[in-house]
Amino acid sequence: MLSKMLRTPTKMAPRNKRILDMVSSPADLHLLSDEELSILADEIRAQIIDTTSRTGGHVASSLGAVEIILACHSLLDAPTDKIVFDVGHQSYAHKLVTGRLDAFKTLRSYGGISGFPKPSESPYDVHPSGHASDSLSVASGLAKARVINGTDEKIVAIIGDAALAGGMAFEALNYIGSQQLPMIIILNDNEMSISRNVGALVRHLGNVRSMPQYRNARDSIQERMESGGAFSNAFIELGRRMKESTKHMFIPESMIYEQLGIVCTPPINGQSISELKEMLSLVLPMDCPVLMHVITKKGAGFAPAESDPVRFHGIGPYNPQTGETYLKPASGPRFTDAFGRALIEEAAHDEKIVAITAAMEDGTGLKGFHERFPERFIDVGIAEEQAVGMASGLAASGMKPVVAIYSTFMQRAIDQVIVDVALARRDVVFALDRAGLVGEDGPTHHGAFDISFMRMIPHMRVLAPSDAHELESALHTALALGGPVCLRYPRGSSAPCETGAPELLEEGRAKQVREGADGAILAWGRALTAALKAADDLSERGVQTAVWDMRWAKPIDERAVEEAAATGRVVCVEEGSVMGGAGSGVLEILAEKGLKPSVRTLGLPDEFSLQGDASALLHDAALDAPAIISAVEEML
Amino acid sequence: MLSKMLRTPTKMAPRNKRILDMVSSPADLHLLSDEELSILADEIRAQIIDTTSRTGGHVASSLGAVEIILACHSLLDAPTDKIVFDVGHQSYAHKLVTGRLDAFKTLRSYGGISGFPKPSESPYDVHPSGHASDSLSVASGLAKARVINGTDEKIVAIIGDAALAGGMAFEALNYIGSQQLPMIIILNDNEMSISRNVGALVRHLGNVRSMPQYRNARDSIQERMESGGAFSNAFIELGRRMKESTKHMFIPESMIYEQLGIVCTPPINGQSISELKEMLSLVLPMDCPVLMHVITKKGAGFAPAESDPVRFHGIGPYNPQTGETYLKPASGPRFTDAFGRALIEEAAHDEKIVAITAAMEDGTGLKGFHERFPERFIDVGIAEEQAVGMASGLAASGMKPVVAIYSTFMQRAIDQVIVDVALARRDVVFALDRAGLVGEDGPTHHGAFDISFMRMIPHMRVLAPSDAHELESALHTALALGGPVCLRYPRGSSAPCETGAPELLEEGRAKQVREGADGAILAWGRALTAALKAADDLSERGVQTAVWDMRWAKPIDERAVEEAAATGRVVCVEEGSVMGGAGSGVLEILAEKGLKPSVRTLGLPDEFSLQGDASALLHDAALDAPAIISAVEEML
Repeated sequence: MLSKMLRTPTKMAPRNKRILDMVSSPADLHLLSDEELSILADEIRAQIIDTTSRTGGHVASSLGAVEIILACHSLLDAPTDKIVFDVGHQSYAHKLVTGRLDAFKTLRSYGGISGFPKPSESPYDVHPSGHASDSLSVASGLAKARVINGTDEKIVAIIGDAALAGGMAFEALNYIGSQQLPMIIILNDNEMSISRNVGALVRHLGNVRSMPQYRNARDSIQERMESGGAFSNAFIELGRRMKESTKHMFIPESMIYEQLGIVCTPPINGQSISELKEMLSLVLPMDCPVLMHVITKKGAGFAPAESDPVRFHGIGPYNPQTGETYLKPASGPRFTDAFGRALIEEAAHDEKIVAITAAMEDGTGLKGFHERFPERFIDVGIAEEQAVGMASGLAASGMKPVVAIYSTFMQRAIDQVIVDVALARRDVVFALDRAGLVGEDGPTHHGAFDISFMRMIPHMRVLAPSDAHELESALHTALALGGPVCLRYPRGSSAPCETGAPELLEEGRAKQVREGADGAILAWGRALTAALKAADDLSERGVQTAVWDMRWAKPIDERAVEEAAATGRVVCVEEGSVMGGAGSGVLEILAEKGLKPSVRTLGLPDEFSLQGDASALLHDAALDAPAIISAVEEML
Repeated sequence: MLSKMLRTPTKMAPRNKRILDMVSSPADLHLLSDEELSILADEIRAQIIDTTSRTGGHVASSLGAVEIILACHSLLDAPTDKIVFDVGHQSYAHKLVTGRLDAFKTLRSYGGISGFPKPSESPYDVHPSGHASDSLSVASGLAKARVINGTDEKIVAIIGDAALAGGMAFEALNYIGSQQLPMIIILNDNEMSISRNVGALVRHLGNVRSMPQYRNARDSIQERMESGGAFSNAFIELGRRMKESTKHMFIPESMIYEQLGIVCTPPINGQSISELKEMLSLVLPMDCPVLMHVITKKGAGFAPAESDPVRFHGIGPYNPQTGETYLKPASGPRFTDAFGRALIEEAAHDEKIVAITAAMEDGTGLKGFHERFPERFIDVGIAEEQAVGMASGLAASGMKPVVAIYSTFMQRAIDQVIVDVALARRDVVFALDRAGLVGEDGPTHHGAFDISFMRMIPHMRVLAPSDAHELESALHTALALGGPVCLRYPRGSSAPCETGAPELLEEGRAKQVREGADGAILAWGRALTAALKAADDLSERGVQTAVWDMRWAKPIDERAVEEAAATGRVVCVEEGSVMGGAGSGVLEILAEKGLKPSVRTLGLPDEFSLQGDASALLHDAALDAPAIISAVEEML
């Protein structure tokens, strides 16, 4: 449509129609001038703000990446040429120019389009990007296939500065450089990751190099080199090379990539269509790896987001004029906040406690801890393996590290939990936030698997607190227990709950919260709320079910299981995968004891859960009160 | 004891007594001269060869690291000062000088000392090192604790060049440099990882930089910079910085670490006690991170190991004079070999098949594939995350990647299996060798968890072939199926089995191999052998049990489970964790169908299995025929 329009004599869009409305595929962008692309960028910004002000979304990074995306699509021939997004939440502009303008209003809603690239949604979405640092590996596979097949499609990966700190990105760079794979890496450098951290490795060097201990160390080694000492001549020669290296102490930031064999371009303005297109034209024909360094501004073009990019990283509905977010109706305390407050309380009484986050200081509720105990707060950047490995070392020195990571991102460090912590029997507490369904961010962000993978690890204990006060008690207990302990709790608000000092929970002991002889519901975590509601409804129908707040997903309370089995009907409910989850743990105990009640295990089914609001997702997963009632009634 | 001896006038050990015999703790080394330490090094080499020629072990790397270890202990005050080994199989000299000379003869045997550092074995063993690239993270935790506590113990990590390619090591370096943590990193550079690979990032740069595409790319960017073009003045200024960077194209290898804020020393001879001690004396007092580059030779001092370090990486008993290994009595074909041959056969008929290894070309049986199809063979180095992420990209381009990784090392890339492969529904086959008990290497190397963690992943299918021919069929089936499929098979030899063309197996369908109405044994993988033996013995006692080769750990054959349940007694047997394993999958199916036979699930118990010979370990885990017989009889 756009091509026809642009061939008309005026080459101008009708007044009431945006260029955006005429873009039906990225090929249409090939016909636009730089100026027209800049107008399109403005239109896309307005569209992103208009939509996300209603749906919420990842606003700041999507606004920053508009020009990069338009410049790429104006020169590439997608979907033959491939664009791989890293943490694809910056891809909104890409969605808008690849046939999803109409669908964009359904962004992140149940049944709507995803907030991340999603191959099943569009042939232009190469990869389901959601976890940081994977784009280079995926792109390296595309590039290697190009080499094997002798084809010449272009491969472009777009990665943020913070994601480059992830070990996976480094592994990919190492391979890409050594094999000279033909691909372009666009470093979208917005000088900021989700929270401030050590992530941006190119950033901290100026500071480090001016630190006295660094300079003293360099100087003393050099002096010693020069003095000769007992060293051989060959060694002195090496000393000379070292002096040479010292001269380069003020080298460009890109040197680290050059070291890996990747050609780097000097930084350009990532909000300038013309600079981007010029540089892309230069690097796209190259058949070796090139890192194209682009400076962007998070939230570019929307003042509220520019001035507060952290709040606009992932945000709910907001006022599109002022950027103010709407206050949600108050319910119970957020699990995240309860954890943050409780950890401060614990740390005030135990100076061995340290908190570790992987670039999620705000998200994991550690902001207050950071302020109160800066020397005991550690942010390793987007580097979960380092977070867990380092926790092991801290614990080996007698500290008590609490590693706060989203459930889904803990998947990045399971081996470290197994070998570095559990096998070593270190006193490390894992605080897995966002365990269970997270809502709008969808399948890459749901915390579906943590009970299954933590439960399989010897020495591990797993607590699934049912409300905010239980979380405080769970943390208190975990720190007192020693050894590896995992807490898992969901996104969002707790049911109304007790307040007061945390309780020391007995290891592996559940809490019966309701009596009943016709059946028993064993609930983990916030599933307890649905379990109690189901029991109430069943009671009205004359069916009396016991309800247990199981508290521990490992070890599971065998006495509770026996008592539940005695009713003849057991329903297990957890907000986690049914495959190998806590319900399977109950089945294992029943088999071992030779008990044979009827059992239903409810949990997240063996598929990737969709995105959307909690109630629809819980209904899908058969995790609400009606599903529990059905399960009990089936067994009557 | 040594200190007393050295204070005698002669200062010489009695002729018939080695210095080694007089070293009861590393503090004794403080008293030795460089010359005496060199004699001790020779004695230790002889001891390592003497012992490992009988026990087998990691000979090449342990011989290479003798002087590094002695130099460290002669200057450090262990266990207050900490030495963290990376992949601790080079730590034999450390074991010998830390009170384990007498126990050394039990190396790697059941109940004996571990072939890796093991904190429960000695206070001098800081960390249960076994998986590559974790030492820097652990040491960073120790160093951070030193900073927090204001103490001044020395922290030394010893890491090989290949392990530095692991993403975890990079994440640690990034953090260590940015925080200027006080620790020494000894880079044990033996110019070689387990098999030749891209791992040693400092190695390939000379080659890369001389490649024409790299030089052309650099030149054309530079020319364009100089010509100005449409770029702004600011941009031209950046171009100047870039030219500056080009000058540094022939910089020392260490620059990459300097870039991360870590002071690097020039390489020294790692087989020279005096050079090592001199450099260590220089760097140990520094309170910033220093990378001490040390060149060693794998197998140093033992000609057969020097000339064939790959064979002497991990080796069984051998002739201590000639280095010849003893031929084992022939049994069935090795699973690894069967896989390697079958993959060549498949690849000969399908040019889309590519093989990926993470520095384990020999170990995973891919040597033949590499020779036959060099362009379709990929070794990413010790970088499992890259292996899996890259496989996703290759599959997205229509290739059929087969990722061959040991079960235990696949733990490093579970998130990538979930997000990059399973969520994306890519046609990737995972070939997990060493699934189950591996024997002498012990708990860091057993493949205990793969069924549990693979089974929880949506879209994943898991095959556990029972013999070498079944493995060929499983591979054939996996490649035909599409989507993510995992094969898991053990170390060692298969039971005697059929030969001939591989079968196309029906998805999720088990194979009944024996009839019987008194009970049913459901077996996965090589546990089938024990199951059949148990059934034979039970039959002699008048108990007729059906036996099923379950083949699939996911999806599990529901029909087979129903038929087994109909006998009233079901025993599940798998060489994998009982927590969430295939047996739990059977329990899930029985619960869902409301079937209530008696069930026993046999598998690796919820603890880290010990090291040692297979029969002792299998007996420990209750995975042999007598255990199966007991389980059946309990239920009669």
